[in-house]
Amino acid sequence: MTADTVDTSIKGITGVGETGGVAAVTSAVRGRVDELLAGFLDARRPPVGDPDVAEGYRLLREFVVDGGKRIRPLLCYWGWRGAGGEEPHDDRAADDRAADDRAVVTGAALELYHAGLLIHDDVMDGSELRRGRPTIHRGLAGTSRWTGAEAFGRSAAILLGVLAQAWADELLADAAAGDARGRAARELFNRMRTEVVTGQYLDILAHARADADVERALTVIRYKTARYTVERPLQIGAALAGAPPALLEAYSRFGLPLGEAFQLRDDVLGVFGDPAVTGKPVLDDLREGKRTVLMAYAYARARGPERDLLRTWHGAPDLDERRAAELRRIIVGTGALGEVEGLIALRAGQALDALRDCAIAPEAAQALTMLTERLTRRVR
Amino acid sequence: MTADTVDTSIKGITGVGETGGVAAVTSAVRGRVDELLAGFLDARRPPVGDPDVAEGYRLLREFVVDGGKRIRPLLCYWGWRGAGGEEPHDDRAADDRAADDRAVVTGAALELYHAGLLIHDDVMDGSELRRGRPTIHRGLAGTSRWTGAEAFGRSAAILLGVLAQAWADELLADAAAGDARGRAARELFNRMRTEVVTGQYLDILAHARADADVERALTVIRYKTARYTVERPLQIGAALAGAPPALLEAYSRFGLPLGEAFQLRDDVLGVFGDPAVTGKPVLDDLREGKRTVLMAYAYARARGPERDLLRTWHGAPDLDERRAAELRRIIVGTGALGEVEGLIALRAGQALDALRDCAIAPEAAQALTMLTERLTRRVR
Repeated sequence: MTADTVDTSIKGITGVGETGGVAAVTSAVRGRVDELLAGFLDARRPPVGDPDVAEGYRLLREFVVDGGKRIRPLLCYWGWRGAGGEEPHDDRAADDRAADDRAVVTGAALELYHAGLLIHDDVMDGSELRRGRPTIHRGLAGTSRWTGAEAFGRSAAILLGVLAQAWADELLADAAAGDARGRAARELFNRMRTEVVTGQYLDILAHARADADVERALTVIRYKTARYTVERPLQIGAALAGAPPALLEAYSRFGLPLGEAFQLRDDVLGVFGDPAVTGKPVLDDLREGKRTVLMAYAYARARGPERDLLRTWHGAPDLDERRAAELRRIIVGTGALGEVEGLIALRAGQALDALRDCAIAPEAAQALTMLTERLTRRVR
Repeated sequence: MTADTVDTSIKGITGVGETGGVAAVTSAVRGRVDELLAGFLDARRPPVGDPDVAEGYRLLREFVVDGGKRIRPLLCYWGWRGAGGEEPHDDRAADDRAADDRAVVTGAALELYHAGLLIHDDVMDGSELRRGRPTIHRGLAGTSRWTGAEAFGRSAAILLGVLAQAWADELLADAAAGDARGRAARELFNRMRTEVVTGQYLDILAHARADADVERALTVIRYKTARYTVERPLQIGAALAGAPPALLEAYSRFGLPLGEAFQLRDDVLGVFGDPAVTGKPVLDDLREGKRTVLMAYAYARARGPERDLLRTWHGAPDLDERRAAELRRIIVGTGALGEVEGLIALRAGQALDALRDCAIAPEAAQALTMLTERLTRRVR
């Protein structure tokens, strides 16, 4: 229902080529984050020697290490670089290099926290698939040989999500401790957690209330995605480099519209995407009755029988492909899709305008421009 | 299924009288923890202005502030006092007093974390009542005017539990930061989180596997309760006072048997307690089929038709009072109850023996003796 927003591709971004050096650095950062997460999780041994507990730990590790596009770590990294953070040189002392790695470790912590959120999200939504594979609670329910496997899967997933969030906290404490910069980053991380969880709360409320108001749907997006996925990771990275308030605000002006455009693209893909590419069944969003901005526009514009069809089938668990095709026709026909595509273009433009006004290192500006393009135009 | 262990009374402990000064101090600490939690939660305003979000925040505040017996904060406090932590004197500088309050703030953080665990616990168990009132997910489902109220209640409770845990972390960071003592306390807190969540994981596994092995049930208790409820809070308090490793180990020798006895008492109350006193329906544990040590003994000793009855009705959602009475007769008749009562007495004795060997301040020894009595002999 919420932060799957989160989980769309940035892989393409890291392809070396078009943007040369910046793309190569981005790719290298991805690799360092992956390595860090794998090392951190490998070191976590269950305190009890039970093979089924070990299997739970293993599933969590796999979920974190094998999946995810590292959007937040990359934004954290480039936020840091933009604020004057410098890559270590090989000829510097190991201690200096470790200090410079704070932005990458912090990014890894953001990713681990995010994994915890996603695991809970899938339990709340009852989702079957993520990243083209069974979700954690489905995987646990499916492999267990016991009665009550469904309930076990859900409970175990709640616990593994909690564990991932606790561990994220430990990883962050390693990177964001001690000095004023660390404390500033930590403070932003704290705010981010409250914001995203409250945004998710607003999202499930909108679902329960069958809310179809465009403004309220945009508020949900702002908290559960725009701040969480873009603004805060950028600012957290910046804080680690000792950025002044003016730069944090500039990142906000860039990050909020980009995050909004990112989520709107996600909503469009949730209804019109190719499941072979997105890794998620394309009927899920419509069957779940997600209260997206796209659907709010459709509700606002549909009249008569089309409105009735929306009300009947949006959120119907037995929605089939034929009915889904009708809903899509309504979404297109009412102009809701066009409205959202227009909004995505507008927000992406606002983000790029704000970026041009940011006084940041040129490589960072180049990287963030590249990320803007990819996050708003992606197909998965 | 798990940490409700947690939620039994210590109120009686705080009655001034029998143990004079120590009881009065204990009561005062309880009051300071309550005040701290109320102040902390009052300061948390939702980042979005939605009345239903505000209602969620309010429910969480009420759950934390109005309920709970503050067992962990009291153990943290007395662990700190035992290790040489000193109460502030009124004539000392405000800064010194603040530093001395670390043990109380840390205790409040433990309580807030615990509230988050309990909220999740009740979702996992599908529990209706806690502390004589509807559980968070039931309360949210009951007051909501929407379709899908049950699902909303569960999802909202998952989010509020996550929020409580994140905030606990912030509260702890305020108290356990900076110096070596704070870092040591934080390290123990981190271990505690992994242990309790893994213990809960083991608990739901035992449930799913319909495990009836006494040794494995004791392992569950050790992680989900003995370390979590007693050993770690004592050690965390001690670490804040700069305790040497020898004292941390002594607290472990005292805390583990006490925590085990505490949970065993909880298991007995879950089947034989008076719901008017415990605040929980007395059929819940039997209906849920909790895999307690008490039940493991009953399974191990029951033969023939009694064993069949246990297998049929332990964990049956339609268990009625008549069948429950039969199960209780089996638990008593097989000697399982006697076995557990004997184990409680044994562990309480071991705890008191270990306490006598602890080189700690006399008031702390007196307070911990008092707590041992109450935690193992309580009726709720």
